[in-house]
Amino acid sequence: MPSFSWWLALSLAALTGNNIGAVASESAERNCSLSPPYLPSTAVNTALQLQELRERMLPLNIFAYIIPGTDAHLSEYIAPRDARVAFMTGFTGSAGTAVVTQTKATLWTDSRYWVQAERQMDCNWELEKDVSISSIAEWLISEVPPGGEIGFDPFLFSLGTQESYNINLDSSNRSLKSIPDNLVDQVWKERPDIPPDNLTRLPGTVIHRTWQEKVDLIRSQIRDNPYKPTALLLSALDETAWLFNMRGNDIPYHPFFYSYTLLTMDEILLFLHLKRVPEELRDYLNSSCTGPNCVQLKEYDDVEEEVKKYVAQPGVKVWIGTEYTNYALYELITPEEKLLTSSYSPVLTTKAVKDEKEQQVLRNAHVRDAVAVIQLLMWLEEAVPLGKETELTAAAYINECRGKQNDSRGPSFETISASGPNAALAHYSPTAETSRKLTVDEMYLVDSGGQYLDGTTDITRTVHWGTPTALEREAFTRVLMGCIEISRTIFPSGTRGANIEMLGRRALWEVGLNYGHGTGHGVGNYFGVHEWPVGFQTNNIPFRSGMFTSIEPGYYKDNEFGIRIEDVAVIVPVHTKHGNNYLTFDTVSLVPYDRKLIDTSILTSEQLQWLNKYYETIRRLMGPELDKQGLHKEKDWMLKNTEPFMESGSSASVCTSSLTLITLAVALLYNII
Amino acid sequence: MPSFSWWLALSLAALTGNNIGAVASESAERNCSLSPPYLPSTAVNTALQLQELRERMLPLNIFAYIIPGTDAHLSEYIAPRDARVAFMTGFTGSAGTAVVTQTKATLWTDSRYWVQAERQMDCNWELEKDVSISSIAEWLISEVPPGGEIGFDPFLFSLGTQESYNINLDSSNRSLKSIPDNLVDQVWKERPDIPPDNLTRLPGTVIHRTWQEKVDLIRSQIRDNPYKPTALLLSALDETAWLFNMRGNDIPYHPFFYSYTLLTMDEILLFLHLKRVPEELRDYLNSSCTGPNCVQLKEYDDVEEEVKKYVAQPGVKVWIGTEYTNYALYELITPEEKLLTSSYSPVLTTKAVKDEKEQQVLRNAHVRDAVAVIQLLMWLEEAVPLGKETELTAAAYINECRGKQNDSRGPSFETISASGPNAALAHYSPTAETSRKLTVDEMYLVDSGGQYLDGTTDITRTVHWGTPTALEREAFTRVLMGCIEISRTIFPSGTRGANIEMLGRRALWEVGLNYGHGTGHGVGNYFGVHEWPVGFQTNNIPFRSGMFTSIEPGYYKDNEFGIRIEDVAVIVPVHTKHGNNYLTFDTVSLVPYDRKLIDTSILTSEQLQWLNKYYETIRRLMGPELDKQGLHKEKDWMLKNTEPFMESGSSASVCTSSLTLITLAVALLYNII
Repeated sequence: MPSFSWWLALSLAALTGNNIGAVASESAERNCSLSPPYLPSTAVNTALQLQELRERMLPLNIFAYIIPGTDAHLSEYIAPRDARVAFMTGFTGSAGTAVVTQTKATLWTDSRYWVQAERQMDCNWELEKDVSISSIAEWLISEVPPGGEIGFDPFLFSLGTQESYNINLDSSNRSLKSIPDNLVDQVWKERPDIPPDNLTRLPGTVIHRTWQEKVDLIRSQIRDNPYKPTALLLSALDETAWLFNMRGNDIPYHPFFYSYTLLTMDEILLFLHLKRVPEELRDYLNSSCTGPNCVQLKEYDDVEEEVKKYVAQPGVKVWIGTEYTNYALYELITPEEKLLTSSYSPVLTTKAVKDEKEQQVLRNAHVRDAVAVIQLLMWLEEAVPLGKETELTAAAYINECRGKQNDSRGPSFETISASGPNAALAHYSPTAETSRKLTVDEMYLVDSGGQYLDGTTDITRTVHWGTPTALEREAFTRVLMGCIEISRTIFPSGTRGANIEMLGRRALWEVGLNYGHGTGHGVGNYFGVHEWPVGFQTNNIPFRSGMFTSIEPGYYKDNEFGIRIEDVAVIVPVHTKHGNNYLTFDTVSLVPYDRKLIDTSILTSEQLQWLNKYYETIRRLMGPELDKQGLHKEKDWMLKNTEPFMESGSSASVCTSSLTLITLAVALLYNII
Repeated sequence: MPSFSWWLALSLAALTGNNIGAVASESAERNCSLSPPYLPSTAVNTALQLQELRERMLPLNIFAYIIPGTDAHLSEYIAPRDARVAFMTGFTGSAGTAVVTQTKATLWTDSRYWVQAERQMDCNWELEKDVSISSIAEWLISEVPPGGEIGFDPFLFSLGTQESYNINLDSSNRSLKSIPDNLVDQVWKERPDIPPDNLTRLPGTVIHRTWQEKVDLIRSQIRDNPYKPTALLLSALDETAWLFNMRGNDIPYHPFFYSYTLLTMDEILLFLHLKRVPEELRDYLNSSCTGPNCVQLKEYDDVEEEVKKYVAQPGVKVWIGTEYTNYALYELITPEEKLLTSSYSPVLTTKAVKDEKEQQVLRNAHVRDAVAVIQLLMWLEEAVPLGKETELTAAAYINECRGKQNDSRGPSFETISASGPNAALAHYSPTAETSRKLTVDEMYLVDSGGQYLDGTTDITRTVHWGTPTALEREAFTRVLMGCIEISRTIFPSGTRGANIEMLGRRALWEVGLNYGHGTGHGVGNYFGVHEWPVGFQTNNIPFRSGMFTSIEPGYYKDNEFGIRIEDVAVIVPVHTKHGNNYLTFDTVSLVPYDRKLIDTSILTSEQLQWLNKYYETIRRLMGPELDKQGLHKEKDWMLKNTEPFMESGSSASVCTSSLTLITLAVALLYNII
């Protein structure tokens, strides 16, 4: 699925003014201009929590308090106990920042959520629609008197966020005040606890490198760094999970657990909630000893104290990745000489390149995942004309199909199941209120993925069960051309995704079409479905053999339809005539595209060749798997949908007509006609 | 021609170890390991200037002094009076940084110049080959004691250079010391003076906007800037020249004159050497009055004092472009609230988009320029087989041809005239020692350009007068494919060059070939031949209609041959089926490519179509011009070389063979055969 950061940057303007989904009757939303205000039944009364928060702000002498939507690990998805914005505002959307002063309370969220916010918030809250930090800062400058301080929880700010607020408040005579003891948590009496007993280690069948080997590998990178760091602090949840080959379920859709790691050359300090660590894991981690290969288990909340203690020693230097380290830990590492920064930690850049085993099991997961998607598409083809299926029933069906596959661990994100105009909203997920009936008159887009013990998947297909319009067919074909052009391109190792992503857009650009989100993101081994820093954005790292990325161009026609084709591909070495060290993509998603939507007359012969070769691969890999699972009807469906395409303007067809001509000439000569 | 910054970044490693040209006999270079050292006659004795510089360093308590190769305007080409590195070291190459301590003197220059440096420097100087600032800083840390200061002239440092030294010296306990009174100038008794009387204004025939209109335009941008600047300081030489529609000849190849401008809403301060301003220009600039549309002429050297005076006023804020403002002026603008920075000043971003008139005259200049290049190529075709021509005579010939064209103002850079292995060095220019004879056995590359009153040109053609090898032909065709793929691509307005430049490489990548420089740069209207910030690099600004850029992919085979094809194109709006605001390129260079080197069998039909359409354009525009100039033989040559290409694998040829088949069948039937 397209990651939101891209979408926001590229298409905010385009989306402005769109309502979400089809239903948005007036009575479902609040009306604060009435007296008394009108509140729908979905609105949450936030008077009490606001009063209590304001009381706590007073003794701190802060005029405003910022409540971000993330957690201390700057995670994309957050656990219920980190849903502070929802607790304070009533609004449960996945993106938003709230700010409270003694007299006002304002939520900033983007266009996907404006209707939802109007339904869930009471009139204590105002809604602001420009979610840029400069817009929030402008509001702060208008509400906070000169000289006034603005409180924030440094655990919930990245370095970049802190810097951005600072730049925007610069020379305004208002400043930020770091308050490490979160004020929302103080008033949130029913704050959910962490789930008990959820830590597991990965079985040997899905890993190649033990945690000890990974620790050695990362230590060698610390040792080889020219700036001579002595330690590495890991903050992103997938960093610790990767290093120790462990998983948890603290975060919805993502198998992570709350953790930090401080790795030095002599010690390994792993911070987590100790009461959740069973004896078996303690043994696994060598936690009873204290040598360089023994993991010292520390209480999660002791990370500040331990980092402080480490930094206080002479001659130490702590390496952090700035993208995922929170400001609270960053500000502990002083003076400057004791800090080494890179955008991403060496764990993230190492994890980005999958080893042989990781590649193999991730490919395997995609084979099983394709079974589920094929089941969905085949079923919808039969069921939709009967008129009973909806976006919601389709989403439920794909979850059910995935659940039956070996080693399934649930969906990797909330399924985007979108028909007709709903699909024009790239991040739409159906609700009871917005779910459309599926019909043969609308295009349907399904973007879904699964977690498996051996891998994470993410795939999008767009289909039509009736007769597509000329524009739908042309746009689909051009989206497909973009997908193929990226997939088949050959490039030197170390090329950045941002430098080749225009291939995904070029066929659309030719006729004046485009899309407002990014073109792909890394995917993990039973990890995040958006696994940075791999992808096609400017801040992604250069492509190397062994990385996995999604490739997902699209086209969206407001209020009419949406098209996206998304495959996951692994980057592989390719033989070239003259050079070495060239790479290309090998697609590991294995589900055919809707033939009805493909206009082969505008494909180049290279594109058709790629498509036919891809379909051969689907047949080769999916045939035996469908057989093995006894899914004969699905196999027939797959075979029918992977028939090779003929080149429409090819010399083959020219030859055929020439032969007809010859036959005709001969017939004429013999007076047969 | 490819700009050096690209080349350096991309290909330093590849070039390492290559000598320049063919001749590098031992006796031509110094040998400092002998006793006494061996010095060739080309070496310069630098003992005196070094001694005098060191004497001046002592009272300033600096342990080292940095001598950069640029001028106070951070120009790409510098005037003789700014050739401080050459004066101090003897080395006259166009790129280098020198550092002097009390006991050592070291020059850093890149691989293009290593041989030249060994020939020109005496043994007072060491040569260092890694020209990165981190390498210079490392040397400084090894030579300067802890706590020691390192002197530099802040007029010769960009903000970026200063910051880069600072970062690299950071935590080493050595620091920079700004010394605005240049120490080299103090010891350089024979320093060339500025040329007298060289300022001119452009005639009305080549300009559309008067300087008053340009001042209004830039003032409106100052007014509209949300950060509320009150003034704009212009430092790059082409900024002031553009604003006032004036030119000079202080800098070789570039029609610039030493100047700064401080533009406020009420005043215009123009800093230049007053003795050079004739009465006519004083009238033109309204310099006798003092209103907002009167130019107050100030002495060039008073810029610091005037900026200081302006900044001392309350409520002012000075806008600078950080890429071209020197550190000396930057450090005057304090406190921080009085400074507004952007990478490029609004003059540079405005200048980047040519108005209708500028587009037209620049197109016209390219028509006349193409006459000269056609004359060269036709002449070489005849003259080379006779065996008397060399790289140098060819370079002289093109200069001569350009000189005959209307409004010629000389070459826009030193011609790259390179045969065989010399062409593998992308920035090679022939000297008496390196110049190769031109033969039918080697490929020949000529990259040259002209200054005209109405425009600046830059074009590269690669030709072969004998039988090219299969690799030469394949590589040339793939370079051409890259050129065509960029030229014909359609993209939304605002797309960055960096995001489409891979199209210039893709056909090469497919067979494992690549090139180590950038793919294009802006070109000016009687201005710099590398006119930033337009181009295909990541720090270039997004493409808009009306910008001119070179498109110049290449391929270089070490010690064998070099290929580059370079055209200048203007970005123009294009009609698309569904969308608005799409752009493409319109090539304004009008010289055919060498047919012998084009393998049409690997071109796509779209590429062939583009090529044929381009050749039609050459015929349409060059035919009448060659007629007008009475160059009939040249016209015939042009027509012969712009014959349309047949599509080799096209249905046309298939049809032909089918017809043959039919004829054959009919003949057989009648027993004709």
